[in-house]
Amino acid sequence: MKIDLNADLGESFGNYTIGNDAAIIPLITSANIACGMHAGDFNVMEETIKLCKTQNIGIGAHPGYNDLMGFGRRKVDMPYDEVEALITYQVGAIQAFCKRHDVKLNHVKPHGALYNATFQDEQLAECIVSALYKLDPELKVMGIAGGHLVHAAEAKGMTAIHEVFADRNYEADGTLVSRSESDALIHDADEATAHILRMINDGVVKAKDGTLVPIKADSICVHGDGPEALQFVESIRKALQAQHIELTTI
Amino acid sequence: MKIDLNADLGESFGNYTIGNDAAIIPLITSANIACGMHAGDFNVMEETIKLCKTQNIGIGAHPGYNDLMGFGRRKVDMPYDEVEALITYQVGAIQAFCKRHDVKLNHVKPHGALYNATFQDEQLAECIVSALYKLDPELKVMGIAGGHLVHAAEAKGMTAIHEVFADRNYEADGTLVSRSESDALIHDADEATAHILRMINDGVVKAKDGTLVPIKADSICVHGDGPEALQFVESIRKALQAQHIELTTI
Amino acid sequence: MKIDLNADLGESFGNYTIGNDAAIIPLITSANIACGMHAGDFNVMEETIKLCKTQNIGIGAHPGYNDLMGFGRRKVDMPYDEVEALITYQVGAIQAFCKRHDVKLNHVKPHGALYNATFQDEQLAECIVSALYKLDPELKVMGIAGGHLVHAAEAKGMTAIHEVFADRNYEADGTLVSRSESDALIHDADEATAHILRMINDGVVKAKDGTLVPIKADSICVHGDGPEALQFVESIRKALQAQHIELTTI
Amino acid sequence: MKIDLNADLGESFGNYTIGNDAAIIPLITSANIACGMHAGDFNVMEETIKLCKTQNIGIGAHPGYNDLMGFGRRKVDMPYDEVEALITYQVGAIQAFCKRHDVKLNHVKPHGALYNATFQDEQLAECIVSALYKLDPELKVMGIAGGHLVHAAEAKGMTAIHEVFADRNYEADGTLVSRSESDALIHDADEATAHILRMINDGVVKAKDGTLVPIKADSICVHGDGPEALQFVESIRKALQAQHIELTTI
Repeated sequence: MKIDLNADLGESFGNYTIGNDAAIIPLITSANIACGMHAGDFNVMEETIKLCKTQNIGIGAHPGYNDLMGFGRRKVDMPYDEVEALITYQVGAIQAFCKRHDVKLNHVKPHGALYNATFQDEQLAECIVSALYKLDPELKVMGIAGGHLVHAAEAKGMTAIHEVFADRNYEADGTLVSRSESDALIHDADEATAHILRMINDGVVKAKDGTLVPIKADSICVHGDGPEALQFVESIRKALQAQHIELTTI
Repeated sequence: MKIDLNADLGESFGNYTIGNDAAIIPLITSANIACGMHAGDFNVMEETIKLCKTQNIGIGAHPGYNDLMGFGRRKVDMPYDEVEALITYQVGAIQAFCKRHDVKLNHVKPHGALYNATFQDEQLAECIVSALYKLDPELKVMGIAGGHLVHAAEAKGMTAIHEVFADRNYEADGTLVSRSESDALIHDADEATAHILRMINDGVVKAKDGTLVPIKADSICVHGDGPEALQFVESIRKALQAQHIELTTI
Repeated sequence: MKIDLNADLGESFGNYTIGNDAAIIPLITSANIACGMHAGDFNVMEETIKLCKTQNIGIGAHPGYNDLMGFGRRKVDMPYDEVEALITYQVGAIQAFCKRHDVKLNHVKPHGALYNATFQDEQLAECIVSALYKLDPELKVMGIAGGHLVHAAEAKGMTAIHEVFADRNYEADGTLVSRSESDALIHDADEATAHILRMINDGVVKAKDGTLVPIKADSICVHGDGPEALQFVESIRKALQAQHIELTTI
Repeated sequence: MKIDLNADLGESFGNYTIGNDAAIIPLITSANIACGMHAGDFNVMEETIKLCKTQNIGIGAHPGYNDLMGFGRRKVDMPYDEVEALITYQVGAIQAFCKRHDVKLNHVKPHGALYNATFQDEQLAECIVSALYKLDPELKVMGIAGGHLVHAAEAKGMTAIHEVFADRNYEADGTLVSRSESDALIHDADEATAHILRMINDGVVKAKDGTLVPIKADSICVHGDGPEALQFVESIRKALQAQHIELTTI
């Protein structure tokens, strides 16, 4: 049994620092690196890739909408061909930093509102995958477990990474409880760990109504902002290791 | 005898259109395409590369300072390692569009104030070349004829493209007459053609004081904005062809 | 009988020029000037206000979403308090240019997607009006005739400017035919003029199904981009003047 | 005897937080608020002004170059008339937030590279003052003690605020020791306090070579980023209060 731990990194911009990249990197096995549109810039990309290389973790692109002020969390109304160009631009930019530092770009995970938009919009998922396939069919595509993005990748013959959330409750249909609901988040590390172990060991997620829903869990999304978040990740790491589940990049 | 004709393209942005790309492309042999920092955006890059592919002209990157409002014409004070990251980001982005459309990225020419800054700053020229070399040692580097940029490229074993100007007067030391001088520009197409033919046939440029200065001419910079500019290019094309000088991408 | 003719101006940005401000200004009586978010910049605002002052036309602010690449034509998901701040910022900026040139800021018309969003969202219209009222209760508020924006302004005791469109067809409920429909636009100047005269003289608009819908017409929106648009405006001007309808700023 | 304590505030942007505004505001008597170009945005301006109003401190504009990525710390090459427009835009925007919250805009202090550029460039100082004068001759102009900015303001009949630095060493000609020098900064709070008291009580600054140079000290620049900076400010406050020097907005 094995699992990947991924976190969003490289979100600083110019004189502005966000996150705690140096502290979270040793705790994770894959990094999703912002590409200079919703967050990050060319200097931050350079530094983040150097840091990831030092710790030998999987390097991923984290392309988002071109909306720095909204941090990529607001849906931008764009036709599909523009989304393909948006993805191409950002992934190309990070591929160049990987080439420069002689590391491989392992995966791509869309960010924020773009990631969320693929939950409902199958054609959006397909156009993102189409853009990635043209750049490099070996790229792995990270998306929400069982969602349109991973299915579109699999349909293209690409490796999909089914992503699950340690700190989010699920609905009986396998979707995430909306953040607008009071029970969207799991705050207790033990509960989160049990949540995750059930997915890995039993292939199911326990929805908030108790239903056991089949789920594929390739990678767990974690966060590194703040001491509490880091402690949460460490708790999950320990529990997984105690269960002899290997933490490894996919 | 042969020569390349290059022009700056893909400088539109969002709802804003600049230049006359469709009209100039059939007249030139190489395009320098803006990469989304001083001008251009991911949609414009997509369209411009498709257009260049149709006409089978050489595709080049035209990276500039990250200053849309100043159109890359203002010097931005950046340390050399940031310039390397700036170049890496933009060239990576355009490499992705080339991969997507199965065309080769042939050359790179820095834009505007970044191009001009290499006239004096040898270390800047070297850091740009170093960034390009790490991305792809086969990339050709376009810079002002005899300047630091082409010399830095040659020192790295890369192919340099010495660029000359049909419509600019030269000083006796081989540099361009500053645009702030009244005699900076050559407006007459016949005079410009004679200027260029002398460079190609005799390997010299006639400076404004009459001195004949040795110069290497691989590519001529032309402009496509406005009917007069297009006519100017056509005059030069005709005169070169009449002299059996082949117009071809380097 | 009198009517105002308004057009969107000052939409150039940096090195990018849009529109034909110098040509349209003598033909209109009110200008809606972009405020540096969806279009325009501080230099363009300075020049546009100087130009409007010369011709003594009404000066208005044209605040939009903070989205230069989308030209303010894409809805940005923002809470109402952020919209108030967005409006305050842009109107304050243009007020300063008016103060600097000793002219009055006469009206405010939201731009693009922000304007359109007020058609459905009454609370959005109210928050825009609330922001304007706090800045200056004497500001006039331009919005679509009979829509939430003008009603919100009137409810606050502010002067509303009901805007009508010479070149757009209307539905039987008084709304505009969507641009996605083939009959959204009126291309014939005579037809457009008859459309407008009916609104001014009879207080009704003839919807596309023939229904006569009551409408208040204070200002006609016209466009200045391209020779055809300018000719269209001139035709309308002549027809209105022939009917002794005074063209004047409200 | 009295003195003003000023700090730069409102430098956060979108999802990015910089500084510790809530902690520093109770310790200072004047705030220089970023205006959305080098830092800050319309939401941050709204919140910062509300916060300053609560504590009843002097509200100032802190306009900078339009360079978010460089945080306004890089010189942007602009003609003087563009600088006037740059200043007009930003000060107008903050005036609107002041009007909205019924507070007075008390002063203006240029930020970063724009502030520094006025040390050498008298004409730049004059154009900034000219822009401010046209907006409101009652605005106070904060600039380095004895520099071109305060002199230009005084020449216009405006109130100048001579700014001094508690944590910076001075040269014998009254200018600041460059940050590139190892002895640019004073790290010891006692030394900084003595430095300041000498300026207030004796009207001189002790340069690093021991020379006593006449100086006018109206306001002391302090910083609020980080616990050490806050402690530094508290030390200076206590020492000044112990000497019965009143801390008050000018």
